[in-house]
Amino acid sequence: MAPRPGFSDKKNDTCCESEGTVYVHNPHLDGMKEDILYHFNLGTSTHDLPAMFGDVKFVCVGGSPWRMKSFIEYIAGELGLENAKSEYPNICAGTDRYAMYKIGPVLSVSHGMGIPSIAIMLHELIKLLYHAHCTDVTILRIGTSGGLGLEPGTVVVTKQSVDATFLPRFEQVILGKTVVRSTDLDEGLAEELLQCSKDLGQFNTVVGNTMCTLDFYEGQARLDGAFCSYTEKDKQEYLTKAYESGVRNIEMESSVFAAMCKLSGLKAAVVCVTLLDRQKGDQLNSAHEVLHSYQQRPQILVGHFIKKRLQTSGSYKS
Amino acid sequence: MAPRPGFSDKKNDTCCESEGTVYVHNPHLDGMKEDILYHFNLGTSTHDLPAMFGDVKFVCVGGSPWRMKSFIEYIAGELGLENAKSEYPNICAGTDRYAMYKIGPVLSVSHGMGIPSIAIMLHELIKLLYHAHCTDVTILRIGTSGGLGLEPGTVVVTKQSVDATFLPRFEQVILGKTVVRSTDLDEGLAEELLQCSKDLGQFNTVVGNTMCTLDFYEGQARLDGAFCSYTEKDKQEYLTKAYESGVRNIEMESSVFAAMCKLSGLKAAVVCVTLLDRQKGDQLNSAHEVLHSYQQRPQILVGHFIKKRLQTSGSYKS
Repeated sequence: MAPRPGFSDKKNDTCCESEGTVYVHNPHLDGMKEDILYHFNLGTSTHDLPAMFGDVKFVCVGGSPWRMKSFIEYIAGELGLENAKSEYPNICAGTDRYAMYKIGPVLSVSHGMGIPSIAIMLHELIKLLYHAHCTDVTILRIGTSGGLGLEPGTVVVTKQSVDATFLPRFEQVILGKTVVRSTDLDEGLAEELLQCSKDLGQFNTVVGNTMCTLDFYEGQARLDGAFCSYTEKDKQEYLTKAYESGVRNIEMESSVFAAMCKLSGLKAAVVCVTLLDRQKGDQLNSAHEVLHSYQQRPQILVGHFIKKRLQTSGSYKS
Repeated sequence: MAPRPGFSDKKNDTCCESEGTVYVHNPHLDGMKEDILYHFNLGTSTHDLPAMFGDVKFVCVGGSPWRMKSFIEYIAGELGLENAKSEYPNICAGTDRYAMYKIGPVLSVSHGMGIPSIAIMLHELIKLLYHAHCTDVTILRIGTSGGLGLEPGTVVVTKQSVDATFLPRFEQVILGKTVVRSTDLDEGLAEELLQCSKDLGQFNTVVGNTMCTLDFYEGQARLDGAFCSYTEKDKQEYLTKAYESGVRNIEMESSVFAAMCKLSGLKAAVVCVTLLDRQKGDQLNSAHEVLHSYQQRPQILVGHFIKKRLQTSGSYKS
């Protein structure tokens, strides 16, 4: 494959001559005859990636494949792009690792649970966008989380993603050595999303820090896992410290998402609804319908954001 | 819920008065009115867990839901337990986080990709087995991996699961502090599985160490991710060091699997096929049929193991 403007080697990490391009940082890629995106069941020899994905401007990602399918149906309706049968095929139908749907400029991809699962998806997604020559792509994670000091159902737009010691960093192990990466997200994009929530007036949205952990139970100070060696008091002290440091919600993917999107020049935001207040409990025991309606809020917010952006850019008439 | 023999608090971690019981180590659990296993869409108030799962003796887990469905179909055939329609309902049909199937004493559960994803599943699985009063449970991970110095298609039964610095340990972060856990697996079980492979004589099986990483690309020294800051020479040096330390394959779940199973008293084994030799390449470019046939090998090996165990115990007549 021939070198392309979006390619940047290590010495060239800060170049910006191709504003808006999706960057890969891997000098080996252009020497490869083909690139198999194994976990998507796609590849440069088997698929015409520029034809399939070249017009993508918004990528929405979330843990659950069902939710990402429901999002593409929702956004198709919002943008007036429903197809005749309202059927949206899974582009990754040949694998069960991830699910992927597309309508117009919007791509919707599931990423499973946890940092390693979303990292595999992002490596292949960034290469996909690069191979497809995409430009000016905005990426949004729409997810669920545990909240701190917030009414359940509140949506949190992440300011900074922090680790279990409340520091804004992601540790990546490379050849057995730890490399620390920044987890900064796009501030302007977060503000824009907050404004969208105000436009809508349907639910409460705040901007705050998001703690990203490697475990759902012990890693998030839950008392209801198979193992628990601490007391309710220990839990509350830890969560209070988290709150005082600015943490408003806890999930399991934002740090590597922020780090990888920043490295590749993708403008990124994390929009998660809080399903419960962790200072009041651990178990997700709200009624199914209540949890389901909460889960739609990031979709509604991001749907409004995409519609507004397309209206502003003139590529969409309401 | 009333305290039960399988419960053990921190002071009592090494007790063994109830040999064969599945242990939880959480004094809070028995004070809960109900326990919702959220990611399975099961719960102690909504489901009769002892009736549904009390007879489970073998739990097989693997990343892909399709593969775990195919395993239950395979083992049903092997044990002569096919049902009339050959349909095996997904017990977790109400969620898309994990898939679960059961036939006779065998439970088959998917766990997604990476340590956090399998850890959520194992917390809820261990609680499920505890609530169901299961005894003498053997758990086997049947997965895929990259090999070192082995012909692709070789099956590796894990001796020890090691981290990216080749040490047999798993780091769990609890309340922001790192706790190191042992990743020892059951030696006798590994030997028994090796013997099963000899009985079968269908493919090569070795016992070796398995390196467990948090990332598939940079974390496993691949040259084909979206980011790569090292050379082919750096990669080869790292993989050579891994090989010299005893590592024979690389995957993404074994360390937390070994650690959690050990803590809960489950006899555990990791059985992964190698899909490629990482010293010769990074991309999974073998034909689909070849990769598919490799993926069946851990299923065949574990199927034979289960059949043999049941024959020996007299609970199954061939």
